[in-house]
Amino acid sequence: MENRNRQVLLKRRPTGAPTAGDFEITDAPLPDPAEGDVLVRGIYLSLDPYMRGRISGVRSYARPVEVGAVMEGRVVGEVARSRDPGFGEGDYVLGGFGWQLYSAVLGQGLLKLDPAEAPLSTALGVLGMPGLTAYVGLDEIGKPKHGETVVVSAASGAVGAVVGQLARRHGARVVGVAGGSDKCRWVEAELGFEVCIDHRSADLGAALDRACPTGIDVYWENVGGTVQQAVFPRLNDFARMVMCGMVAEYNDVEPRPGPNLMSAVRKRLKIQGFIVGDRWQRFVEYRAMAAPLLRSGELKYREDIVDGLDRAPEAFIGLLQGRNFGKLVVKLGDDPTRRA
Amino acid sequence: MENRNRQVLLKRRPTGAPTAGDFEITDAPLPDPAEGDVLVRGIYLSLDPYMRGRISGVRSYARPVEVGAVMEGRVVGEVARSRDPGFGEGDYVLGGFGWQLYSAVLGQGLLKLDPAEAPLSTALGVLGMPGLTAYVGLDEIGKPKHGETVVVSAASGAVGAVVGQLARRHGARVVGVAGGSDKCRWVEAELGFEVCIDHRSADLGAALDRACPTGIDVYWENVGGTVQQAVFPRLNDFARMVMCGMVAEYNDVEPRPGPNLMSAVRKRLKIQGFIVGDRWQRFVEYRAMAAPLLRSGELKYREDIVDGLDRAPEAFIGLLQGRNFGKLVVKLGDDPTRRA
Repeated sequence: MENRNRQVLLKRRPTGAPTAGDFEITDAPLPDPAEGDVLVRGIYLSLDPYMRGRISGVRSYARPVEVGAVMEGRVVGEVARSRDPGFGEGDYVLGGFGWQLYSAVLGQGLLKLDPAEAPLSTALGVLGMPGLTAYVGLDEIGKPKHGETVVVSAASGAVGAVVGQLARRHGARVVGVAGGSDKCRWVEAELGFEVCIDHRSADLGAALDRACPTGIDVYWENVGGTVQQAVFPRLNDFARMVMCGMVAEYNDVEPRPGPNLMSAVRKRLKIQGFIVGDRWQRFVEYRAMAAPLLRSGELKYREDIVDGLDRAPEAFIGLLQGRNFGKLVVKLGDDPTRRA
Repeated sequence: MENRNRQVLLKRRPTGAPTAGDFEITDAPLPDPAEGDVLVRGIYLSLDPYMRGRISGVRSYARPVEVGAVMEGRVVGEVARSRDPGFGEGDYVLGGFGWQLYSAVLGQGLLKLDPAEAPLSTALGVLGMPGLTAYVGLDEIGKPKHGETVVVSAASGAVGAVVGQLARRHGARVVGVAGGSDKCRWVEAELGFEVCIDHRSADLGAALDRACPTGIDVYWENVGGTVQQAVFPRLNDFARMVMCGMVAEYNDVEPRPGPNLMSAVRKRLKIQGFIVGDRWQRFVEYRAMAAPLLRSGELKYREDIVDGLDRAPEAFIGLLQGRNFGKLVVKLGDDPTRRA
């Protein structure tokens, strides 16, 4: 165990795209667990697009990260010292420990992870918040039916990859949209999507027409921007638009105009947003469903693991530009379950 | 009975706002009912905003009216001659007979009206398609709860007046938006809305802030345009936007931009459109609920009755500009149930 902590702080609120200078990487004293606390050594830190909202200072569904505070984020870690009788040293836990190597937190309410169930890092992605997001949004809003066409943006991402695979299990025809031919190849070959369109290709509309000859019944919105503009007019009557995020617009200083909503009347569209934080009560149910699929190989995933806390700001900046390929995770320290 | 028919035809598709020259008023031979038909003498013709869509030639949920064809519309009429044993002369019926004085149509499937249940003309408004629209949209999408704030645009119109009254019966706080102080006064005094805002007033946003100090939980969208722009940013978390129509934009040649949809994620909005034509199966249920309320005076309504088929084009043009006050109906001929 180190005898110093290390943290990434929000130095100032970014305007437009975040830069390295918006963050400060600093040493700090090792936190001291109080009675009931555990000291957690971080192993994996999750970086997710929603964090852009948290540092913008705009009123939203969650309180923003204060300037000067440790950046927020979910972490899988190992209990290094325990003052909670429910936890022992060496237990693996998931919690919102933030962008730092160590944290002292109340043991109560922490989720213990069994490394025999699935690799620890998956608790941040396919079996974590992004996976639950996909499950809840499809189950409660998208409701894909057998034979329907489901379009998933950011298809190779942590959420999109699960959305498409679950939609296929409902018998839907799944079309992905992703940035770059390598991602598209993986989405088609590994995840089994019918086709995956590179959104950087010249004519996205024509590509969607070819990929969705009978129109689009469910659109999973992760990105907004030009993909939304191309998908919207191709929605079928009674289509559902699952509003999960619009990462391509998160760095915008002024919001772009959206689609004219008269189509929602004519086509009886349902455009509905949700926040996975409202649905944590379904996390256990989701993991019980998904973990066996993961172990059997029916549910595939890919991680993009960046080594070392100091690289978190740069990795996060890249995430907002789609530079990651798979669930973006920062490795904070040794994973004892993956030692050779 | 006249021995000639009279009809309003679509002469050409309007670009922008329709003008009198887009219609042709013409005499025609009296139609001859075949076996199984009834000859209907029209009494009341309903004029409704949706008709603007039918004459635009744009692909939509219903086939457009062809150029040269009789304008479509619902009519309450009297059976003048019957070749269907299920109908006798003098029966009152509701059907899609169009903008004309007489029509010969299959008796099968026509709804018979009992003038003792409610005035005949109400089958076109408060107890007709507009009333059913309000009922279905609130019941299936808006779902107002006790204490929530419901904003209704075109509040004095055929749909809006019913929406607000039904929402009040759910215990909601109802705020109307209408065009002009006379309409607003009626909405407040007669329909009992908490307040009604004149959308022509200088600062619609500030007026909404005053009228909705805790934000907006349900927005009933009848108009689009500047009202939509003012309401959208004031929607609460988990608000429902019932997309019924956007009449202020029906004459637009190019669609206006809509709101940026990232709010739908942050606020978990549901924006959902519907078409009452998908829900005719609930018409009988609606009338059974609403007719007693109408007779007891608990459900109020107002009609704007224009005399004579020849005035239908001008009345329809005015409808799209909000010139009517209450449900717009054209009186085609004598109503025997209203003789002194």
